[in-house]
Amino acid sequence: MALIGVSRDTGEGALNILQHLLSYGYQGRIYPVNPSASEILGMKTYSSIAQVGENIDLAVIATPRSLVPRLVKECSDSGIHSVVVVAQGFTDASDAEGTRLQKQITDIVQSGETRVLGPNTFGTANAFINFSSSFVRIGMKKQPVGIICQTGVFFVGFPEAMLIGKGIDLGNACDIDFADGLEYFKADTETNTVALHIEGVQDTKRFIDTARRITPMKPLVALKAGRSDQAAKAAQSHTGSLIGRNEVWEAALRQAGVTQAGDLEELIDLARTFAVLPLMERPEIGVVTISGALGIVAIDDCQRFSLEIGGLSADTKRLLDAMSPSWLDVGNPVDIWPAMMISPTVMKPLADGLESLLSDDQVGGVLFIGAAFDEKWSIGLCQLLTELATAHQDKPLACCIYGPCGNQAIGELQNSGRVAGFPTPERAVRALARLSEYSQLRRIL
Amino acid sequence: MALIGVSRDTGEGALNILQHLLSYGYQGRIYPVNPSASEILGMKTYSSIAQVGENIDLAVIATPRSLVPRLVKECSDSGIHSVVVVAQGFTDASDAEGTRLQKQITDIVQSGETRVLGPNTFGTANAFINFSSSFVRIGMKKQPVGIICQTGVFFVGFPEAMLIGKGIDLGNACDIDFADGLEYFKADTETNTVALHIEGVQDTKRFIDTARRITPMKPLVALKAGRSDQAAKAAQSHTGSLIGRNEVWEAALRQAGVTQAGDLEELIDLARTFAVLPLMERPEIGVVTISGALGIVAIDDCQRFSLEIGGLSADTKRLLDAMSPSWLDVGNPVDIWPAMMISPTVMKPLADGLESLLSDDQVGGVLFIGAAFDEKWSIGLCQLLTELATAHQDKPLACCIYGPCGNQAIGELQNSGRVAGFPTPERAVRALARLSEYSQLRRIL
Repeated sequence: MALIGVSRDTGEGALNILQHLLSYGYQGRIYPVNPSASEILGMKTYSSIAQVGENIDLAVIATPRSLVPRLVKECSDSGIHSVVVVAQGFTDASDAEGTRLQKQITDIVQSGETRVLGPNTFGTANAFINFSSSFVRIGMKKQPVGIICQTGVFFVGFPEAMLIGKGIDLGNACDIDFADGLEYFKADTETNTVALHIEGVQDTKRFIDTARRITPMKPLVALKAGRSDQAAKAAQSHTGSLIGRNEVWEAALRQAGVTQAGDLEELIDLARTFAVLPLMERPEIGVVTISGALGIVAIDDCQRFSLEIGGLSADTKRLLDAMSPSWLDVGNPVDIWPAMMISPTVMKPLADGLESLLSDDQVGGVLFIGAAFDEKWSIGLCQLLTELATAHQDKPLACCIYGPCGNQAIGELQNSGRVAGFPTPERAVRALARLSEYSQLRRIL
Repeated sequence: MALIGVSRDTGEGALNILQHLLSYGYQGRIYPVNPSASEILGMKTYSSIAQVGENIDLAVIATPRSLVPRLVKECSDSGIHSVVVVAQGFTDASDAEGTRLQKQITDIVQSGETRVLGPNTFGTANAFINFSSSFVRIGMKKQPVGIICQTGVFFVGFPEAMLIGKGIDLGNACDIDFADGLEYFKADTETNTVALHIEGVQDTKRFIDTARRITPMKPLVALKAGRSDQAAKAAQSHTGSLIGRNEVWEAALRQAGVTQAGDLEELIDLARTFAVLPLMERPEIGVVTISGALGIVAIDDCQRFSLEIGGLSADTKRLLDAMSPSWLDVGNPVDIWPAMMISPTVMKPLADGLESLLSDDQVGGVLFIGAAFDEKWSIGLCQLLTELATAHQDKPLACCIYGPCGNQAIGELQNSGRVAGFPTPERAVRALARLSEYSQLRRIL
């Protein structure tokens, strides 16, 4: 790969693509291009693409915008088929010059075999080959989540989740668009869930057609940004995206089987849930809670997000009754705390209760609500939950973990690749509700 | 204080009120009562309340339920005016015995001066005197947030926030009810914000009357749990609460000036926001963002939560224009990243941009959207934001901090006591929208 316009700024805080790329441990060959330097970070630099004189698979262009069309042409003439344009100031700019420059790039692309990602993009990220063209140093993780977005925000990540297994930032999407990204992830065996952050799509029909072919195989979750008029106007100056009417978008995404997130938090929650949980074979869930109050909150949440709290089988009820104090009327949600209080080993009723619900044919998925009181408790709890989920890989287990060590436990559960963890019941219920909807859809697709 | 029914189980994992209380550093005198032991945790135990022979302000009863009425009577006879009943199995139980036992407690209370908190409660927590009667070890923090709840969950806390400055768990609320808790917090100078988790209220009229007298002085934020029919039924067996119709509740809370949270996450977000931010003098906010994409998301969020993105003064626009590339059409939200990219010091445009919005008379509050890329960046960012908020104590500053060190930054901002931090724009916008509504209400109350 060639890096055109590599910065001579290096060291801590420098926005240097080459420096970051080397730090990830990327194994491919890199040719830095900068006519004003002979060496950057110990690597020989080249004055131009032509001077490299090797076969190049990918060129990343990070120069002032005025130079970009000529450089794209040079790449195309040199037989480079993939170009990422990081530079800003094209249709994302307010001036006519930006639009003119982007038009020049599009013209070059249309007349040859070269495809362009961007401009105004972080490019791509791929944890499986330790690669990213991001000018901000990012963290990646080999996980089965792919994301197609119009911003580098998802590369940088969120406090609650690092989503980047593989990422494609379309930026202004002058050439490579959502449908191209979807085709990639459709074929990609390392990805089982695809998240989309959409400001606008150039060829909506092709996008919806492609999405419709993927959703019977892999879940797509999408956040449509720029839904309000004011936001749509702002999106025009962010990535030059033309945004269709929101109602049309919603209907089209629904038809294509795409799960729609109401906000950013839901997009993140759904992506990480769909990536680790199996489909739900029945729409009713069973709830085990150590807090009666949060059990009640979860019932409200189930009503709000259209998820059913089902009945329990006679066997399950018998087992739960036997371990609980006689004054407790065991139902679903199962309040397991009283049983824990009268048991010599506090974790035993918890394990038995969860096991019985995970084995119950009347239950399609299980929600556990519990606390991580301290570090030791948290470790034991995560171990128990991971073991149970591993023994019941056909039934989704989502957890709300409150308490001071909750974040740590949620992270650990997510890392197990088997359990989805959340800080509140509502987020766990919302994720299970969407999983249930998608599971039902999969049966008829 | 007397602890009646102190457990002989001690050490790690023991649910021992005395052990926890000693660990917090509570300075009051403690009299453990347990007729089967002479010493627990190095402290002399007493066989009964009568044997203590000292003036006791508070008795905490944690025995099997059958003993409780007799013990409450003993406390009452010994002149103890405050009793916490931790024991479960009263109106929260499904059997007639539970209801009968609770009735006995109520009868004792009605005939004397003794007041009872509970049964089925964690009791109280007060970070300012290192006290809690919780049988789970909890973390407390001297912060101006008081909570009145019907569960110990808020004492244990959530991954995202430790709310307990002062807490009152009403449990089954056989005597002390929401109105009593509100009267306490109304007079309490250490509390500026009160959060409520309500399953049901015995005397609704008194509750609403009391709330109405507080909201002109201090914000009340409330989550009404048990809103669905199924949840209302479950609440009956959780705390024996009779739950009124949801629509009636909503109207009553609105009339009393109580800010209602749609879910648990919102309750937590609002409590910590109201506790640290000043009121908003104008309903329009200004947004500074390092991500154009999240600026667009924030606009959608403002529409969703009814918050206005206002205009900027001519001075502010001039300053922002001067620091931005010529191709950028500066508006609100202010996309500050292009200015940062062309500045020799990346933080300078950020500081100047935020300063100009915080000083702009047309802006009632400021939302900052930025990333904590790494630890060093995070520390610098938090320092900048805290300094700005300290210099502008009349204008609320809420932040969405994404990126891998976001949680750390959010925690640090919260600890500063001046800035409210959130992991996504929607949560920051939602909190500012509710703050704006309450601020408008305060002007007419």
